Amino acid sequence: MITINIVCVGNLKEKFWTDACNEYRKRLSKFCKCNIVELPEQNKYVIPTQILEKEGEDILSHITANSVLLAIDGKEFDSKAFARFIETQKQTTSELTFIIGGSYGVCEKVKQSVKTKLSFGKATFPHNLARVMLLEQIYRAFMINAGASYHK
Amino acid sequence: MITINIVCVGNLKEKFWTDACNEYRKRLSKFCKCNIVELPEQNKYVIPTQILEKEGEDILSHITANSVLLAIDGKEFDSKAFARFIETQKQTTSELTFIIGGSYGVCEKVKQSVKTKLSFGKATFPHNLARVMLLEQIYRAFMINAGASYHK
Repeated sequence: MITINIVCVGNLKEKFWTDACNEYRKRLSKFCKCNIVELPEQNKYVIPTQILEKEGEDILSHITANSVLLAIDGKEFDSKAFARFIETQKQTTSELTFIIGGSYGVCEKVKQSVKTKLSFGKATFPHNLARVMLLEQIYRAFMINAGASYHK
Repeated sequence: MITINIVCVGNLKEKFWTDACNEYRKRLSKFCKCNIVELPEQNKYVIPTQILEKEGEDILSHITANSVLLAIDGKEFDSKAFARFIETQKQTTSELTFIIGGSYGVCEKVKQSVKTKLSFGKATFPHNLARVMLLEQIYRAFMINAGASYHK
């Protein structure tokens, strides 16, 4: 069973985000081991470049050989292409790490250290909603690959 | 104050989706009047074309001169372009209607009756999550147009 790590900057303040994520993690449990790694937002710094640098240090310590960064300028996948991506990863690696940056995004160093940049479209979403969207797309990918009727 | 109608097929079963939507509707209340119109899923029919036809009849009764359909093959907006779209609408109309189809999407008649087809990317999301995403993007649009710091 593949391990999927989701490394996020910032925690979920509202219960409805936590509940939405837990629902998809529960559903995912039959397909993968899903870990959420929450890194602190570096709010004590004022200058965005400083925030990005400090948050980047934390993120870099979690980057593995197979890391995927959520980025608006990344490769845009439709759900079926994303399912094929997940399937390929499943066959070639035991661990896959997704990274969701904080309010200011991520620093250049992080961008350059990841293997794949993944985009779910041009629109900007907040990190909490992005986490739910990513979990849903991972779940959808496994369901597509299992030939289930979830994805019509 | 502009009225924004969100016409959706299917209701929100889980409390976390209702709570997430209510949070954005609360935030939106200072910018617009936001109505949610929930139409029933036509589950009693088995054939997808029949479901689409029946749901389509309901949707068509809510379509106005300024209707926007969420569709994967629609025009892809980034959040700033969507904010400009909302601003233009605000200046030219008092009512704007968004349509989110059901599990099978919408029928051709609905597609042909709307003025704008809007896409937030190539990925397929479930209708409940799509509703949250749309509300968040509308809120983001108003915040961008107000020059607020929400959108970094």
